[in-house]
Amino acid sequence: MSDAGGLGFLAAAYLKAADVESRLLAARRVTSRPLGVNVFAPGAGPSDAAGYAAYVERLRGWAQHVGAPVGEPRWDDDDWDAKIELLSRAAVEVVSFTFGCPSSELIARLRAGGLEVWITVTGPEEARRATQAGADVLVVQGAEAGGHRASFIDRPDLAAYGLLPLLDLVRTATTLPLVASGGIATGRALAGVLAAGAVAAQIGSAFMLAPEAGTGAAHRRALRSAGETVLTRAFTGRLARGIRNEFIDAHDASAPIAYPEIHYLTASLRKQAREAGDPRWINLWAGEAHELARERPASEIVRELTADARAALEAAHRMPWMAERSPGPPPA
Amino acid sequence: MSDAGGLGFLAAAYLKAADVESRLLAARRVTSRPLGVNVFAPGAGPSDAAGYAAYVERLRGWAQHVGAPVGEPRWDDDDWDAKIELLSRAAVEVVSFTFGCPSSELIARLRAGGLEVWITVTGPEEARRATQAGADVLVVQGAEAGGHRASFIDRPDLAAYGLLPLLDLVRTATTLPLVASGGIATGRALAGVLAAGAVAAQIGSAFMLAPEAGTGAAHRRALRSAGETVLTRAFTGRLARGIRNEFIDAHDASAPIAYPEIHYLTASLRKQAREAGDPRWINLWAGEAHELARERPASEIVRELTADARAALEAAHRMPWMAERSPGPPPA
Repeated sequence: MSDAGGLGFLAAAYLKAADVESRLLAARRVTSRPLGVNVFAPGAGPSDAAGYAAYVERLRGWAQHVGAPVGEPRWDDDDWDAKIELLSRAAVEVVSFTFGCPSSELIARLRAGGLEVWITVTGPEEARRATQAGADVLVVQGAEAGGHRASFIDRPDLAAYGLLPLLDLVRTATTLPLVASGGIATGRALAGVLAAGAVAAQIGSAFMLAPEAGTGAAHRRALRSAGETVLTRAFTGRLARGIRNEFIDAHDASAPIAYPEIHYLTASLRKQAREAGDPRWINLWAGEAHELARERPASEIVRELTADARAALEAAHRMPWMAERSPGPPPA
Repeated sequence: MSDAGGLGFLAAAYLKAADVESRLLAARRVTSRPLGVNVFAPGAGPSDAAGYAAYVERLRGWAQHVGAPVGEPRWDDDDWDAKIELLSRAAVEVVSFTFGCPSSELIARLRAGGLEVWITVTGPEEARRATQAGADVLVVQGAEAGGHRASFIDRPDLAAYGLLPLLDLVRTATTLPLVASGGIATGRALAGVLAAGAVAAQIGSAFMLAPEAGTGAAHRRALRSAGETVLTRAFTGRLARGIRNEFIDAHDASAPIAYPEIHYLTASLRKQAREAGDPRWINLWAGEAHELARERPASEIVRELTADARAALEAAHRMPWMAERSPGPPPA
């Protein structure tokens, strides 16, 4: 994929730093091209237990009824310090952050070590803060994206902007290069975000049927379907987009904001469902265009997306309207 | 605006056919270019009163408390037959439908009279139906759009796709020309949807600060703000995007699906608030990019959008990556 023109990212979330390191080494063995690592920034600290106790009770009762295992809610910082230490010495070119913006001191330290620092944003105010903190690049995540919303804080009233207006609104807050993300599964959509001013696109669901992807069998079946996606906190206590299933229908309305506590509460039941190939209780993360994902090697997907994007931009550039003389200044 | 390259549409909703006709004649006096009319397709019939009785009671109590007038909920078909009769003989080139797809017989009749028939769709299944019914063009409305969602039926579980993935999903269902709509307020975004395969864009909020627009003073002030928008049924009983205000905060969670009954229930209180310049109870319809709207004559907005879109497509076309040789066929 990297050799085809993509920039591959290693997902470091839910891994110990030592595991991130061994995966990075494995990735280094298959490509000499630049690599990125994506890291979840930890929140301010544990959620108030009173805010999620009822949901824990609810899921325990439900799990007993359906015979699924639930775990203990708990907070952790996802091995933050050790991951930062690893990044400052590892053979990696780019780090992208999700769920928050590290301090300007930390960003400066990573940049001093030669890393390019990308911050994921979901609105213009986050873009302003990431720019002030010293980011090199902003990943602009539209509401169309699969998986977790990258917002600095999960709030019930946070606007979930669509990608195209979000690129425009973020542009009013920063002059940094923008990487567009969310619902991009075709070369046409890639051409669209490039024409709208992004320098690149971050693409997830469109790679999830590749043989190289770690997508489980039940998740693959769901991605191929025309199943509609929804934003839900039911699985992890943080807003994320996935294909609607029985777990979401049963619990979405009751789910609190409490990440990663609810993630740990449901991790074992999701694991069991994945192993059983049972889509009802899996977090079937998927972006809005998931049904356009193709079963191809990742390198072919990259080549096809770029060739199609090139053709789409050529076609737009050839429109008769493009050849018209620019209008003069408006009448005074 | 039409002389600058736009295709102006007359909003025929909530007007008697005779009023549509006089406005069309007025529009004809200012331009000889093609004109369109947008018509709301009537639903299947009145909503079940039991489904909205509690909301009527709630709003009556609230209105009495705050001293605002409420009306009687009622159903009507928005003068459908007379409007269709008018369209079949009026000097107009395009009719676009919202809230549903007319029968193939009706579409054939309008097309036989020389009209181009556009149907607004919000998902691939609606696109399939509109194509089968004989539409000439589909208006593809993303979730970013201000005002009412154009869905054929308002359902609580209907997916609200972002514009870019929606264009791709609709493309799997039809070969008709697509007009992109929702959150397009800059030339960059216009370039984006054209590169993504749309033949044109339908733009609303970006014109709402033009001196020619019928936007009231309080609505203009709200559009200039960075106020976040939400989808709500509180004002009309049908999902629509507007800038969050006190009315939405107070009533959104209780609002039923009952259009146009709830529209008529709240029409008088919204009118009073508009006349008083009080933004708290006005339906401040706005798309997600409303704060990018500019205070300019409509013709200048059209010229600026097209010039900026042209520049954005030129810039995308000049990217070094575009000049790279197309990749060969993938390895066998």
